[in-house]
This record gives sequence, C-alpha cells and structure tokens, in this order.
Amino acid sequence: MGLKFELLKKDGKARRGRIFLPHGVVETPTFMPVGTNANVKLMTPRLLNEIKAQIILSNAFHVYLKPGLDIIRHHSGVHNFIGWDKPILTDSGGFQVFSLRKGRKVTEDGVVIRSPLDGSKHFITPELSMEIQYTIGSDIVMAFDYCAEPGVSHEEAERALELTTKWAKRSLKKLREFSDQAIFGIVQGAFFYDLRERSAFEITAMDFDGFAIGGLSVGEEYDITMAMTEFTAPLLPENKPRYFMGAGSPKIIVDLVANGIDIFDSVLPTRVARHGQALTWKGKINIRAAKYKFSREPIDYNCQCYTCSSFTRSYIRHLFDRKEILGQILLTIHNLHFMMELSAKIRDAIENNTFSELRKEVLTYYD
Amino acid sequence: MGLKFELLKKDGKARRGRIFLPHGVVETPTFMPVGTNANVKLMTPRLLNEIKAQIILSNAFHVYLKPGLDIIRHHSGVHNFIGWDKPILTDSGGFQVFSLRKGRKVTEDGVVIRSPLDGSKHFITPELSMEIQYTIGSDIVMAFDYCAEPGVSHEEAERALELTTKWAKRSLKKLREFSDQAIFGIVQGAFFYDLRERSAFEITAMDFDGFAIGGLSVGEEYDITMAMTEFTAPLLPENKPRYFMGAGSPKIIVDLVANGIDIFDSVLPTRVARHGQALTWKGKINIRAAKYKFSREPIDYNCQCYTCSSFTRSYIRHLFDRKEILGQILLTIHNLHFMMELSAKIRDAIENNTFSELRKEVLTYYD
Ligand SMILES: [Zn+2]
Ligand SMILES: [Zn+2]
Repeated sequence: MGLKFELLKKDGKARRGRIFLPHGVVETPTFMPVGTNANVKLMTPRLLNEIKAQIILSNAFHVYLKPGLDIIRHHSGVHNFIGWDKPILTDSGGFQVFSLRKGRKVTEDGVVIRSPLDGSKHFITPELSMEIQYTIGSDIVMAFDYCAEPGVSHEEAERALELTTKWAKRSLKKLREFSDQAIFGIVQGAFFYDLRERSAFEITAMDFDGFAIGGLSVGEEYDITMAMTEFTAPLLPENKPRYFMGAGSPKIIVDLVANGIDIFDSVLPTRVARHGQALTWKGKINIRAAKYKFSREPIDYNCQCYTCSSFTRSYIRHLFDRKEILGQILLTIHNLHFMMELSAKIRDAIENNTFSELRKEVLTYYD
Repeated sequence: MGLKFELLKKDGKARRGRIFLPHGVVETPTFMPVGTNANVKLMTPRLLNEIKAQIILSNAFHVYLKPGLDIIRHHSGVHNFIGWDKPILTDSGGFQVFSLRKGRKVTEDGVVIRSPLDGSKHFITPELSMEIQYTIGSDIVMAFDYCAEPGVSHEEAERALELTTKWAKRSLKKLREFSDQAIFGIVQGAFFYDLRERSAFEITAMDFDGFAIGGLSVGEEYDITMAMTEFTAPLLPENKPRYFMGAGSPKIIVDLVANGIDIFDSVLPTRVARHGQALTWKGKINIRAAKYKFSREPIDYNCQCYTCSSFTRSYIRHLFDRKEILGQILLTIHNLHFMMELSAKIRDAIENNTFSELRKEVLTYYD
C-alpha cells in the first residue's frame, strides 16, 4: 500500500534503496530535515529543494495543536499549507508523549498530555493520531508508540513494549479504515535485548510498509545505541525501508548506515547552525571563534552550497557577532546541504562498494 | 566624477532619471533597502536581486564599529564582504550623530560619540567619515552633516546649518584627495524656510554629484515635512540626482516624487514586516489578525513575489503565531518587493504622463 521499496544494492550491511511515495521518489540512505511547527526553521521550501531535501519530517502533534486540523483541512493537507510538494513523513506524537512528561497520564487506551503552548489537556489515542496524520496527508504515517524513559526497569520497559504493540495494531487497523497511506511500525524495548527481540517480532508480524527503531538516541551511552541498533536492524525484513528515529550527527549516520538503516532525521544540524556551529568535511567548526575574524575562506571549500559559494567565514562570524539572523539562515542552509551531500556520498559509496572507506573518513573528523 | 545622471523625462515635477555608477545603473525614482550591520535584515543578496533592488544603503558608522575597517579592508570593500555586486550608498554617520545624543559632544572640528555597542568613545570628523566611506568602497558617499533636533530654535538650527556647510566643504576636499567616488551634499536648515534656502545655496555651490535633503521626517508633522520638501527641492540643480533621506511609506514616496525627488530609503518596510505588517496595493494589513486564520488568499493577489506566489495568509499568520522567523522572512521579501514594484510603477507612470493618477490611487490606500 502507498509505498514501493526497491533494494538496489548492498555493500556489507549498508543498503542502497529507493522508496516510491505519492509525492515523489526518495533515494536512500537519506537524512530528513525536521519541520516543527509546519516549517523547517529559517528554510523556505525552495531552499529545501536547493539543498536537495527529498523528504521532510513534520511533527503531527505540533500541527494538531497549532494551527490545528481545521486549518490543515481547509488547505487540503499540510503539503499545500507549507508549500512543499515532495514527500512528508509525520511522526505520530509518540515522541511528544515521551518528552512532555509533565502532567502526562498513560492508560491502555491512550495518553492524556498537556499542551506546551497553553497547558490544555489532550487525550491522544492511536486512533486520533491516525486521524491527525490522515488529515495532514503525509506520505508516510508513523504508528502511535510508547517510548519508555532511559533507565527504566525491565518490567516498565516490557509494559511500554506491550502498549506499543497494541497501539501499533490499533494504528494499522484504524488507518486502513479510511486511507492507503504508507505506515511504519516502531520497534521499542528500551535497552534490553530480549525486549528488542520481542518487539521486533511482534511489530514485523503486522502488515506495515516499513519499520522504525524508536526509543534510542534519547540520552543513553553511544555504545548502547549502537549495540541495540546492531541487534535490532537484522530482525527487520530486508524488503522494507528502515528508519532510525532522531539521529543527526555525521558519526551516527555512517554508523547506522553500516548497520543497514535507510532513513534518519534530527533537528541537530539546524539547531547547531542557529548557535553558530557548522558541519564541514573536516569536522565541526564554531563560526564565532576569534580565529575566523579575518578569514576569507568559505565555511567549507568542498561545499557547493549557496553559503559557501557566496560568503566568507569572517562575514558569517560578523553576522553572529551582531546577532543578525541572516547568519543563522546561512549556516542552516550550509548544514542541511552538508547532511544531504553526506547522504548522497553514502549512496554513491554503497553503489561503488566503497562505503567503509567513506565511513572511515567521516569518523576521522566526527567522533 | 564617479557618477553620470540622465534626466530622461518629466511629468509635472516628477522626474524619471538614470544614474550610472561603478557597480551598475540605477533607474530613478527608486527606493533603497537599508542594510544596517552589513546586511539587509533577513535578506540574502540573491533575494535582493530577486526583488529587483538596484542600490542598497549601508550604514558607514555601524560598519566602522563592527566589523571594523580592518576586516572591510581585508575584503577589499563592503561589496565583497556582504556579497552584493550592485551599487551601494553609504550614509556618513551624520544621522547616527543625530540619533545617539547620549554622551555626544559637538565641536567645530567634529563629534565625540559613544558606541551603542560598548560605550566606547569615537571622535568622528568629516575627514574620518570620508576615510570610512572610501574604505567601504561605496558607489555614493554622503557628506558628513549635522542634523539639528526637531524643535530647535532658529539660532541653533543656523549653527547646525553652518557646521553642515563647513563639514560639507571638508568632506568634499578630503574625499577628492584620494578618491573619485560620487559624493552627495546634504541640505539642512531644520523647519525654517530662510535656513533651508541658505543651506541649499551654500551646499549646491559646491561640486557635489548629487544632493540630499536631510533633517526631515525626524518626528515632525507631515505637513511640515512636505512644505519643507516642496520649498527645498526646486532649489536643487535639475541635472543632478536628489535624495530624500529616511522616507519609506508609500504615501511619502509618491508625495516626494511629486516634488521631484529621485531616491529614498527607510528601514520601515522591513521593520514593519518583522512585526507582521504587510504593504499591499489595497493598503496595509496585519497578518496576525484573527480574520486571516483560514484565509487561503496570498498577501496580495496583485503581487508576483515569492511569498505571494507560494503561501497563504493563513500559513504566514501561523508562522507569526508560533514565532517562527520564516514568517518574518516571507513578509520582508514581500514588503521589499512591494517597494521596488511601487518604484517601477512610478517610473512607468512618469514615462506615460500618468503619475498623478498613480499617486491618487496610492493615496487612496495609504494616508
Ligand atoms: Zn556550504
Ligand atoms: Zn508579495
């Protein structure tokens, strides 16, 4: 339904794939820029096209709160609302349930959650999440899951897993009542191998169009993140796309790809850009540093983005120094371009069986 | 020197002209976007090209303070620094002297002024202002003037006028020692007809490449602004460009053009954009208004800018509601496009002898 996936090539466990979606084709592996509040911060849709974003993530829960579904319906979906005609993946609200712990109440039926905007209460169920994502009209819907906090006991993690499985079932059933949108199931299980295995078994038994690994990269040690991924990824079917939720550093991306992950998202590249940090092919730099005061170099000589082809480090540093938002805009463009370029290089490397060399090179500068 | 002006056509007192400058041709009348801190807030140079900006104003005093002349020199001028290859006009610092009254000390030699950034003292003279503007490498340099406060006595205004004349002489002499950049003299005289007349006489007696009317639109009644302009403009030579400093509403612009002014600048269109106000061909609208919550209309059906061809009022309102800077970016694009489009319509109208009709139409919606 709603999605076709072609696995084109493998290089070790790394996968070169292609996802066909209603709003276009997504070449994988790929990074997804994140659009909270119905926009990728400081980026117009045509800038997203320019940096070659193929698919963006939209936060269903944020859109549900503001502007609200009535306005989205009035625009016939979020694509028209935000002026983006390429694929969109929506998260289910599960992560917001995880991060908005204050005033939250979880029952088997769903979750009562407090709006971070006005404190109003909202009862989110798998069914409501499906209605929200249907109204948004995303190309990929995420099942409504329950992500346990890092450090929970085995018992609590098991309960979260069981809820996740039940809610996955209800998500899939509900969505199929009115929509053939593609939907991904989410594997939970905290940092317990047996629970990851059980969750993967239960979630992949259902007729999802793709699978996500959730509940990782939430504050735990990096070794745990990777151990869990290395263990879980092979439990997912080879013929469907795999999405690791919430990973955005160059290091984790090459490590995830090496473990057979196809899609990843993070606010990191845009967030650090707004604080003056630029990702380059020789590692991170902080543009506020005094040493760039006179630098006529671009952020990265090896980058073809608008920022690097037009402005010096000295100028961008000046903009940050004077708190001019244009500096944040220019670094956001560069960092997202870098992430998309990294994705493209990864795809090329897999095709040419040189992925491990590329990974090694990236890890030289990012650790 | 540095500038050639062609007066192409007149329609009443309104003038259709063309200024040839080292970095390009400027068709007049035209509005100039203002770039404080070496950037037009939220606008990249290519966006400025897209909205058809012909020339931008750069604040010499701000650039002098930050990033400082050493960095500008290192980039061989402000054009390279900011990535803008079309004409730039620099103000002389005179207006900063006017607006930074705190801790200021004026002598015949120059002005001691306190930096708004760190409180440091700076002694600005006409000679220093010329050195700054030379280093910046602007296409049009402004003489260093002294603008009296609104409401000053005839005596004080006369002293300001006399200083302005002396400083104009020193500005011109100093600049010509090392540069053939175009330089404009500034007519002062507060709100006194006799002083305006004397200032115009003294300033136009010098070999400037163009003339500005300064010291107006600084808080006085609109009738006074226009009475002074109507009186002063005819005292300026017909064969040189005329610049009214600091005017940016559609109303004042058509009124100034009707009095033979060729160039104007203001932070107004960009500043109000950042507060949610859009200029349209049917008057101003505030995009935050509840009535636009569901509006799928563009900001202005008659506008071809990126914002109007891509986004609804509802969406832009949402961005402002969620304090997303993208909303400010989109309205800045629109408002500047509107000002440039207004400039182009004024030029067309003068060519077709229909300027008074256009003026009437603009004044219907802006008063
Ligand atoms: Zn770049
Ligand atoms: Zn527009």
